[in-house]
Formats: sequence, C-alpha cells, structure tokens
Amino acid sequence: MERITFLLIAVAALAGVAGYTATASRDNGQEAAPIFVNDVPVGYRDWQFISVAHEEGNLNSFAAILGNEVAIKAYRNRTIPFPEVTIIAALHYRFVPSAENNKVFGRDQSFVPGAPTNVQFMVKDSSKYAASGGWGFGHFNSEGKAVDGAFMKTCLPCHQKMKEHDLVFTRYAP
Amino acid sequence: MERITFLLIAVAALAGVAGYTATASRDNGQEAAPIFVNDVPVGYRDWQFISVAHEEGNLNSFAAILGNEVAIKAYRNRTIPFPEVTIIAALHYRFVPSAENNKVFGRDQSFVPGAPTNVQFMVKDSSKYAASGGWGFGHFNSEGKAVDGAFMKTCLPCHQKMKEHDLVFTRYAP
Repeated sequence: MERITFLLIAVAALAGVAGYTATASRDNGQEAAPIFVNDVPVGYRDWQFISVAHEEGNLNSFAAILGNEVAIKAYRNRTIPFPEVTIIAALHYRFVPSAENNKVFGRDQSFVPGAPTNVQFMVKDSSKYAASGGWGFGHFNSEGKAVDGAFMKTCLPCHQKMKEHDLVFTRYAP
Repeated sequence: MERITFLLIAVAALAGVAGYTATASRDNGQEAAPIFVNDVPVGYRDWQFISVAHEEGNLNSFAAILGNEVAIKAYRNRTIPFPEVTIIAALHYRFVPSAENNKVFGRDQSFVPGAPTNVQFMVKDSSKYAASGGWGFGHFNSEGKAVDGAFMKTCLPCHQKMKEHDLVFTRYAP
C-alpha cells in the first residue's frame, strides 16, 4: 500500500493516464492513441515561472513549475480549458536542508533544491491526446529517460479530480 | 531577540546593507552612496528560473528566485563575481498547505505558495553600489512599496558571509 501510495503521489503533479488506453488497445486490436510525451520539449528550462510546490513524505520533493508562452498567457488570462500547444513543465528536486544557509542564519530553517529527480510535462493537443482529456503526459528521470507505461498507470484518477481546472494541479503564483 | 532574528532572516535571501552607509553619511557630511534599489525592475516576473527556496519558522516563506538574462548566463557559466547589470529577484509567498491537492492525494503532504509577501532584488552595479560590495538591494512589500532603511540594516552581515559566492545565497537549480 505504501508503494502504491508513493506511485500515486509521485506522478500526481503532472503525469497521467496510460493504463486505460493500453487496455483498450489490447481489447480491440487497434493501436492505442498516444497519451505519452516521448520527447523532452525543447528549451523548457528557459520557460517562464508559473509556481513552486513542495510534497512531503516519501516524495520529499521541491518543484518549480514553468510554462511555455501559450501556458503563461493562458494562466494570466485565466483561460480554461488551456489552449492547444500549452506545455507545462514540473522540474522536481529533492527537498533538502541548506547547511550553508543555516550556518549563516544561525538556525535550521532553510530548504533548497537537492539532486534533480525528474521532469514532468503536460502537453495540450486535443486531437493527438483525445483519449486522455486532450493532454499528453511525460515523465523523464534525472537522465532524461522517459519512464514506461506501468509507472504512468496511476495518474489519470488523480488528474481527473482537477476537472474544473482542466486536469491541471498547479495554480499561478502572482 | 525574536524580532531581531526575524528581521535578520527576513531579508537574508537577498537584501542588505543600509545602516553602515547611512552612518558614514552622517559622520562625514557627504551624501550617502546609494545602496538601495528604489524602483522595481521592469518585467522581472517574466525572467527565467534560477531556483526555489523555503524558510521555516516565523518567515514561513516559499520563494522563487528568477534572474535577468545576464544573471542566468552568469549562473550557467559559473561566473563569479557576477557581471554588471546582473539582477536577481526573489519572489516570496507564504508557505501554505494545499487543501485542494491534499484532498486528491488523500493525505496532508502538499504545500504551495500562499499570499505574496514581498519581492527582493539584488542589482549589480559596481560603481553605483560600490559601498555595498557592488550590489544594490531592494525589498518591496506586497503592494510594491520599498521598505525603509531601518528594515534593511540587518542584511549586510548575512550577505557578507557568502563572500565566496559574491554575497549571493541562491545557487542554480539545474
């Protein structure tokens, strides 16, 4: 159960969906509609800032959420659903104390990003990703490698609970 | 003491210096060298991402640290000291639990930015800010108003402890 919870939460920020479509594919003999993002979107580290996030527990993560121009414009205009070509990136790091900062401050209070753990993406393409609410989901480990479908199976149930925000967890930090 | 600690820490991420120069000015009758940034740098919310940070305790802050083009380039090239026209911005928010996310995850684990509290800047201009290590320091409250010198007095002792990183606390998150 601990492991299931971990997986559920690990991809909750952005990921999603795989299991359902894969099953459908096996059932009807058709090729499954694409629901994964297989390539890291170019230039995402240069994108603008949407928000930050921290998850406690096993995840112990520190995240920066960035967006391409379409994403930023949509957030600022409160456009829901997000328009085509929106891409949202979540850069995840370990959440670690900063010994350097704490020494200066004279007490343990400061937390900074540790080692990068993964980068997740949501890509809006209503045709290509029609089977998953118009979103393609990607999860790339710290070496830039996409994780396989099994890891992604637990995502959609979480994201569907954010239906009123077009399956997106992150809100815009002003 | 609690209040002093709070002030010390409140500006530690970026601010600095005021007290010394103000005193020098009174001593010699000269006009003090500028050490504050009085105007919010234009367009900082569109800048690129450097890192995130969290401070516990009274501060209870969530920060996104952004940089202008000069800053980003310097960070990526590990250029120390930072070159002229570097500007680093720290956007501070309250560090609050996300009831919305926690409901989906089924447990209390998720923290997001709450109300904005302040934005701090470090502006590199070795001539203009020669009295404070080449850095001008700015702290603007949530209404965009610069705080006065009294608030800024506690900053330099902290920043000077980061001398090997040109008085800058924040490191680059890859």
